[in-house]
Amino acid sequence: MSFQSFEPPATSSDDIRGRVAALRARFAGLGVDGVVIPHEDEYQSEYLPASEERLAFITGFTGSAGRAIVLNDRALFATDGRYTLQLERQVPGDLFHRVSEEKAARAWEEENLPGVRLGVDPRLHTRADLKRLGEIEGLTIVRLDGHPVDDVWTDRPAPPRGRVKAHPMALAGQSPAEKLAAVRAATKGDAVLVTASDAVSWLFNWRGADVAHTPLVLARAIVPKEGEAVVFVDPEKLPNDLAGELAGLARIAAPATFLSALEELAAGKRVVADPARSPDAALAAIEARGTLVEGVDPTMRLKAEKNAAEIAGVRAAHVRDGVAVTRFLAWFDDHAVGSTEIGLAERLEAFRREAGALDLSFDTIAGSGPNGAIVHYRVDRSTDRRVEAGDPVLLDSGAQYADGTTDVTRTMVAGTATDDFRVQFTRVLKGNIALARQRFPEGAMGAELDPLARAALWRAGHDYAHGTGHGIGAYLAVHEGPQGISKRGREPLATGMLVSNEPGDYRAGEWGIRIETVLLVREPRVPPGGLKPMHWFETLTLVPIDTRLVIPTLLTPDEIGWLDSYHARVHGALVGDLDAAERAWLATRCRPIGG
Amino acid sequence: MSFQSFEPPATSSDDIRGRVAALRARFAGLGVDGVVIPHEDEYQSEYLPASEERLAFITGFTGSAGRAIVLNDRALFATDGRYTLQLERQVPGDLFHRVSEEKAARAWEEENLPGVRLGVDPRLHTRADLKRLGEIEGLTIVRLDGHPVDDVWTDRPAPPRGRVKAHPMALAGQSPAEKLAAVRAATKGDAVLVTASDAVSWLFNWRGADVAHTPLVLARAIVPKEGEAVVFVDPEKLPNDLAGELAGLARIAAPATFLSALEELAAGKRVVADPARSPDAALAAIEARGTLVEGVDPTMRLKAEKNAAEIAGVRAAHVRDGVAVTRFLAWFDDHAVGSTEIGLAERLEAFRREAGALDLSFDTIAGSGPNGAIVHYRVDRSTDRRVEAGDPVLLDSGAQYADGTTDVTRTMVAGTATDDFRVQFTRVLKGNIALARQRFPEGAMGAELDPLARAALWRAGHDYAHGTGHGIGAYLAVHEGPQGISKRGREPLATGMLVSNEPGDYRAGEWGIRIETVLLVREPRVPPGGLKPMHWFETLTLVPIDTRLVIPTLLTPDEIGWLDSYHARVHGALVGDLDAAERAWLATRCRPIGG
Repeated sequence: MSFQSFEPPATSSDDIRGRVAALRARFAGLGVDGVVIPHEDEYQSEYLPASEERLAFITGFTGSAGRAIVLNDRALFATDGRYTLQLERQVPGDLFHRVSEEKAARAWEEENLPGVRLGVDPRLHTRADLKRLGEIEGLTIVRLDGHPVDDVWTDRPAPPRGRVKAHPMALAGQSPAEKLAAVRAATKGDAVLVTASDAVSWLFNWRGADVAHTPLVLARAIVPKEGEAVVFVDPEKLPNDLAGELAGLARIAAPATFLSALEELAAGKRVVADPARSPDAALAAIEARGTLVEGVDPTMRLKAEKNAAEIAGVRAAHVRDGVAVTRFLAWFDDHAVGSTEIGLAERLEAFRREAGALDLSFDTIAGSGPNGAIVHYRVDRSTDRRVEAGDPVLLDSGAQYADGTTDVTRTMVAGTATDDFRVQFTRVLKGNIALARQRFPEGAMGAELDPLARAALWRAGHDYAHGTGHGIGAYLAVHEGPQGISKRGREPLATGMLVSNEPGDYRAGEWGIRIETVLLVREPRVPPGGLKPMHWFETLTLVPIDTRLVIPTLLTPDEIGWLDSYHARVHGALVGDLDAAERAWLATRCRPIGG
Repeated sequence: MSFQSFEPPATSSDDIRGRVAALRARFAGLGVDGVVIPHEDEYQSEYLPASEERLAFITGFTGSAGRAIVLNDRALFATDGRYTLQLERQVPGDLFHRVSEEKAARAWEEENLPGVRLGVDPRLHTRADLKRLGEIEGLTIVRLDGHPVDDVWTDRPAPPRGRVKAHPMALAGQSPAEKLAAVRAATKGDAVLVTASDAVSWLFNWRGADVAHTPLVLARAIVPKEGEAVVFVDPEKLPNDLAGELAGLARIAAPATFLSALEELAAGKRVVADPARSPDAALAAIEARGTLVEGVDPTMRLKAEKNAAEIAGVRAAHVRDGVAVTRFLAWFDDHAVGSTEIGLAERLEAFRREAGALDLSFDTIAGSGPNGAIVHYRVDRSTDRRVEAGDPVLLDSGAQYADGTTDVTRTMVAGTATDDFRVQFTRVLKGNIALARQRFPEGAMGAELDPLARAALWRAGHDYAHGTGHGIGAYLAVHEGPQGISKRGREPLATGMLVSNEPGDYRAGEWGIRIETVLLVREPRVPPGGLKPMHWFETLTLVPIDTRLVIPTLLTPDEIGWLDSYHARVHGALVGDLDAAERAWLATRCRPIGG
């Protein structure tokens, strides 16, 4: 069985109409005029098991972020700029007012929610989310017991029971005991609530199989300053030896007991929880008999700042992944025309399996021609497109290896590119290089780096409606917090963090360009002739960037220098693992462009 | 009488010791263990009349931002990175723990304030400020009636009574009636509280003489959605004709009645006030009998987005100021060596008076050699320094003209610069050019532009401990909100806003470099070949940048192109107002450097 399925979603707009009607029929009984259907589940996770795909069930939308608000006679569907085109294809416009900008969503809410009693499931929303909603004047938020979608979802799949396996110490670099000690040392209070599943998985060196492409274990934990931690996870998922290793460190509790156990454990205690990441219901459970200390969960940053063992693993994974993607690119040059998007994705997956991949890290985005303009395009048999000569192809993909998670985007052209396309490609490349070679002081936030990748595009009157980069786990979630390089990235970058670097440019109906590499934040050092220590980036991704698409005169000598030395590194790292034909291809593709 | 006084502050450290002791002697009677002395007055203003210089009275510090916390046996003095060197000279280190970084200030507070009953004057603090302080665990905030410094300040000057004059319609571009209508249209509530004096001055087209160098009228206002506004301003300041013009628009009330009148006016009403800009005491007065609606004061953005008449005035003022500064620079080349910093400031002021300046817009910063490294250096007779051959000189100055406010920094060398200095100068220039030629989409915040001016410095291991730019008024405050280009600049830039562009580099004990111009945010337009409309900057400042200090090979062709075309504009704008010798000098200094 392949890692990725290409079956189209089976939901028709008639299905959706029926489901929305069934949902509305329940409003009166619940005493509400409408309900919110968030994308997130009770783990506040982007990565959902099938049992939690409430938003897809009600709207047809299969992207990774969004929300719906269904009222008696109207409804909103809101997502972000990555999904502008997808939402038009999937979400029926006669049922939903569809927007892909937060400002537009807010305008709809302010217009339509005053006077409304709006039902929410407080397990599925962070408190920050409900607070934002509560600021709409005249809106009454009604906290429901469970989500009404579940009552109309008659064939709802069972919750997942992915088997938990150990992430070995050689790759994790730290034992759960050491990690728990670090979390405790950073906790200002009697206990801290850890609600992100990837954070719990990191904390106990667990990997799981609850959701597609992301080896996290759906779980939550409470870490007291002293004494055993409590992990809320289905005990059936846990092999005996792993359960045994927890002795003295933590005890297991059933997920269904989470809120009641939290209330009991928090009684008379000061418990740290993050209103921006933890469910409102959990915060209420703390407040019932204890004191809520609003603060960040220290596990998030500890997880994000990779240690030496994790970095070694991730570097090794990037070499293997670089070999797989490079072999694919060599193949692409001869075989792209006449292939289809699914054909490309399948061939790439085959190379990755040979390189030892355990899974993809997300469904491959293989967008040819106009499909490339759909930022998060997910090809299926109903949209599959034959690649014609001259077509640009945007390929955004990644894999899970036992020692690391990868995420790389390359944009190619099947045949010869137009000069216009090469100009745009070069501008996107300028953005990627600007970020890759930037140094920055300690404490700099992602929001301060984001514009550096956009500056060349902004000057030319272009922009991309997505962030420049996200955090990445080590054999864990391909999107991880808390760091991010975007307008909203308020978290200081720190040594050992991984972030993607993926500026792009999209022309609706024609093509998309994106160039993505994974960066490792390196320890501050004083540059030659400088005064202050500065962080710098090591580009971990090792895959050639197609210089046939570059107009060298649009690059500065420094930019050309960066590109040439990057290709020298790529060549050196990969050449030993390729066959003769691939080696010849790589040598050509890594040739310096600066005299 | 000259605009600027060069007398050194008369406060000795013995004075300070006595004042701190007298202040401490009052703590027991007030039932507190300490008090906060903020820089701001009850107008939350950076610009203080002598009667409000509490912080200078207690600490000796004469800079424009800071705070002290005096406890029984210890004290904190905190300011920002612009004043790192100045605080060491002015604030006695044996009395105060002195810091110039917010992180260090916070650490002191968290260490020393638990268990303390800390007195504050709620007229002098915004609510956001007190909230931040209140987050320190175990600290009790005691709201006092007035500030205890006033009780020990026996020779405190009387409050100012600067005469109010009208800012003519030809320059204001809008009548108070039109402005009030715009404020009302943007107000979500029954009334809005306007607490910034420059905003009130803008609203009623008033200019005053309450504080040095800034023609604002110390005043506050309440603007109801319907009916007359109320302006709290000393009626003695107001000529009869101006008072008459208010008929039907607003009525005058005495400043001392502000809190009681606010409480009465707010009774049963929903009043908008900004917790980040308005005093805690005012918010409490609203809450006493009415409803506080937390929100921004719309006057701030309306004032910041200059209209066509204001822009025309500001442009004209920049031409006159450019002539004055350029004449000074020509003089500097022949006369700097052997002159002193005060001599330079006096000569520059003389040129500005000839150009029609009504005042300086702030005390001229003329820092030669090591004094240039003091970001906000204010020369006086005790620090005045003779300029020697080879000395770098940082000159940051501005003036008030009837039609506009200027602010310009140029860095020169008296004689020949070292190559090392030229390298640093060129890097700072790269930052200034990067911002000046950047385009950006609607909605971009100052925080997104700030790093563009730092990128070249960061790459070289340099940085500056201040923001890149501040807002600027039109014949009003040289620092105005809400916009700013800094890490904290969360306000979207909009057409008509003025911001400074002033990257720098400082080597303690040696020199400072800063290059500052004023930028006007221009309306979005689609660049040639682009897709999206983008804002762009018009550089208003018209003063040559010394190309003898530039290493052209460190600039890209685009940067050289910008510099050469800037100098062509400068030459064209100024040449008609110079004498023959100055014209020859200007022609040489505006020669293109790019072949």
